[in-house]
Parts: sequence; C-alpha cells; structure tokens
Amino acid sequence: MFPAKGVKTSSIPGYTYGSKTLATSPVSLEDLARLESTVLWTDDDVAALRRAGEILGPQADRILDVWYGFVGSHDFLIASFAGADGTANPDYLGAVRARFAQWIVDVCSRDRDQEWLDYQHEIALRHTAAKKNLTDGVSSPASVINLRYIIAFIVPLTATIRPFLAEQAPDADEVEAMYQAWFKSVTITAALWAEPYSPSW
Amino acid sequence: MFPAKGVKTSSIPGYTYGSKTLATSPVSLEDLARLESTVLWTDDDVAALRRAGEILGPQADRILDVWYGFVGSHDFLIASFAGADGTANPDYLGAVRARFAQWIVDVCSRDRDQEWLDYQHEIALRHTAAKKNLTDGVSSPASVINLRYIIAFIVPLTATIRPFLAEQAPDADEVEAMYQAWFKSVTITAALWAEPYSPSW
Ligand code: HEM
Ligand code: HEM
Repeated sequence: MFPAKGVKTSSIPGYTYGSKTLATSPVSLEDLARLESTVLWTDDDVAALRRAGEILGPQADRILDVWYGFVGSHDFLIASFAGADGTANPDYLGAVRARFAQWIVDVCSRDRDQEWLDYQHEIALRHTAAKKNLTDGVSSPASVINLRYIIAFIVPLTATIRPFLAEQAPDADEVEAMYQAWFKSVTITAALWAEPYSPSW
Repeated sequence: MFPAKGVKTSSIPGYTYGSKTLATSPVSLEDLARLESTVLWTDDDVAALRRAGEILGPQADRILDVWYGFVGSHDFLIASFAGADGTANPDYLGAVRARFAQWIVDVCSRDRDQEWLDYQHEIALRHTAAKKNLTDGVSSPASVINLRYIIAFIVPLTATIRPFLAEQAPDADEVEAMYQAWFKSVTITAALWAEPYSPSW
C-alpha cells in the first residue's frame, strides 16, 4: 500500500522497519491474533484503518505538533527527552519526531505480519532501558519510559485524533468507524509494547 | 455519594474497600495526579463520570451479562476462571461478578483518595500470582492474568459501555462526555493495575 508513497522511509535516521538486523519478536502471531480478538478487531476495522491512514498520513506533521505540544507541557513527560545537560534535547526530539510521523502511516497501512511484530518489539525496547537513547546516540539521564505512561498515552493518542478525522470525513458514522479502528490499534500497540516490561506479559 | 445507596457493599464476599487490613499502595497521590493529567482528566470529567454512574450503576447486572458473555466466548480469557478441574468454576465467576458490579459503581462515584488507591493496589494484586484465587479460595490452574489482557481490556470495557449510556442520556454530546470520562477512568485503572507487573512501572 502507501507506506512508501511520498515518504522515503529508508531516509529516516534510525528507522529500521523490515531490517534483517532486527531480532525476532518474542510475541507470536497467535498472541497477536488473541490480542486482536480481545479488542474486538474485525475486517471492517482493517478497512476503516486504511481509510484513516489516507487522512492522517498527509497530516502527520500537524498531528505531531499537537502531540509534541502535549508532551512539552508536562515536565514529567518532556523529561524523557532530556539530553546530557538535563534539558530537552532538540536533536533527539527531532529525530524521534520523524520516526513518529512514519509510525502514524505504518499503523494505518502495514499488514500485521512477522515483520510488523519484529518492529513493534524493536520500538518497545527503545522505550526501555535496553535500547532507549541508543538509536540517536543521546546521553540522556532518562533511561526508561515508565510503563504506566505507555498505557495512559492510549487516551491522548486516541482522543486528539478525532478532530483530524472529522475535518475530512464525509459523515459522523465514518468518523466513528475510523476512530474506533484507530483506538483499537493504539491499544494493541500499547499492549504489545508492554512485553519487555513484565515477566507476566 | 451513592456507593452505599441500594448496594450493601459490606455484604459482598471478598469486597474489602476501605478495610484497615489493606496494604498501602506503592503508588502515591502525586503519581495518580500525573496519570490523570496524562489522560487529559478535567473537572468536567469528574461531573460527567458521576452522571455516568447514575445511569450505569442500576444497569450493572445487564453490563455484566455483556462482559461475561465476552469473556465466556474466548477460551484464553475464560481459562482465568478455571477451577481445580480445569473448567470454568461457577462459584468463582459468581463471586467475582458481585465485586465487579460494585466496581462499576465505585469507578463512577468514589473520590480518588488514598483509600481508593489502596483498593486499586489490592485488586491489581488479585490479578497477579501474589493474590489471584485467594479471595475466593479457588484451586485454579490459572495463577495470573497476563498484563497484555489488562491493557487490551480497555477497549471492550469502554466500547460496550456506550449503548448503555446512549439508552438513557438526553443527547449525543452528553453521551460523548460520559463516554470519554469513562474511557479515561478505565485507562487510569489499567495503568494503575500494571504496577505489580513491572519493575519499570
Ligand atoms: C502508546 C504510547 C506510545 C506510542 C504509540 C509511542 C510512539 C513512539 C514512536 C513511534 C517512537 C519512535 C519509534 C522508532 O524509533 O521508530 C517513539 C520513541 C520514543 N518515545 Fe514513544 N510512544 C508512546 C509512549 C511514550 C511515552 C509515554 C513517552 C514519554 C514521554 C515516550 C517517549 C519516547 C521517547 C523518549 C522516544 C525515543 C526513544 C529512543 O531513545 O529511541 N513515548 N515513541
Ligand atoms: C482493565 C481491565 C480489567 C478490569 C477493570 C477488571 C475488573 C475486575 C474486578 C473489579 C475484579 C474484582 C475485584 C475485587 O476483588 O474487588 C476482577 C477480578 C478478576 N478479574 Fe478482572 N479486570 C480486568 C481485566 C481482567 C482480565 C483481562 C481478565 C482475564 C480474563 C480478568 C479476570 C479476572 C479474574 C479471574 C478475577 C478474580 C481474581 C481473584 O482471584 O481474586 N480481569 N477484575
């Protein structure tokens, strides 16, 4: 589909989706299928998510403005982007932002296959002490993103998307369908990314 | 408010909200305030949640029918309620159901104070190997609820609530306000309950 359309993914520093160097996710496709069925995922959601991607992808930059504004206005969140001097590091913020924009496109357009699982595992690790700061070579005092915020982020990452969908969707039912598919996808993401955080995942 | 109205909470077996025997939660009120601000919690949400409680509390039994139907139709979920013989234990299901109904009322009506935090900690532990099965004295082969399903449950516990709100709310804006307050509250709950699951909570 359109992950490659208009976005030169290979040119995003640190973005390694599909790379042969990635470890295989400890999460199986069977685990994933169970998670999908737990969030009531259906074929209609697949279609709605693809349509959401057509709307959200081109607006990724505006969406990131909202999300970065949100993170920046909470000291306990922006602390995760601190550089060696303890204050937010603009290079780090910028490098992550480019990959985050690509993630919006990927969530909506990629098939959830083994390659997808492997990159979810990689991003999960990048939020933990195992790999945080390595991709961008940052000397950050923040060595891990706490799990509770990964879970709590389901709300802001979902709620803030609705206006972007509503702006361009033909009617309320269509907004709702895309919104629910997005909500389910973000929740699956948070559940998957919790894996390296817990022995009882 | 109305936690005590019409529901003899003290008569629910195993329900120990406010009991002096509960351990103090390792989560501080400051941690909670940060979680609330991460899910964009506002005073309007407090009011909307109270109104949601007036609608949902009296319908708790119908809501539980939906949720238990959902759990019962997924073998990997109903397995958590297995008794010694490996099949779903009706007494266990029934005992938890009574406390679950009370939880719906509590979510909507209780103040989020230290007493509330302490019971969240207790329920969290009851989903882990530390305390699962103890309250109801069950010999269950299922010793823990996996963290990923606690997170994934945010979707079914949220999405299934909307029709119950819509049935009795005066207009669409009011449904939406109560729905969002509920969504945020369930997400806070899942984030809190993740605490005993992870050293990087
Ligand atoms: C479900 C919740 C979250 C989602 C969907 C998400 C999404 C992302 C994405 C897409 C990336 C870039 C991945 C890549 O390298 O390709 C990233 C990295 C990052 N995120 Fe998150 N994030 C979430 C939660 C959080 C939270 C709560 C924080 C805390 C403020 C946070 C801070 C960061 C940081 C600091 C990085 C860079 C990590 C590194 O050093 O590589 N994220 N996130
Ligand atoms: C955010 C998600 C969840 C919520 C809000 C929730 C809610 C509750 C509540 C209110 C109780 C009774 C608490 C008390 O003792 O007062 C309970 C217990 C229980 N829940 Fe959950 N639950 C969640 C996730 C799950 C999942 C994913 C499963 C797996 C099927 C599950 C299975 C159970 C079991 C087996 C018990 C009894 C635990 C014991 O032995 O004491 N729960 N839950």
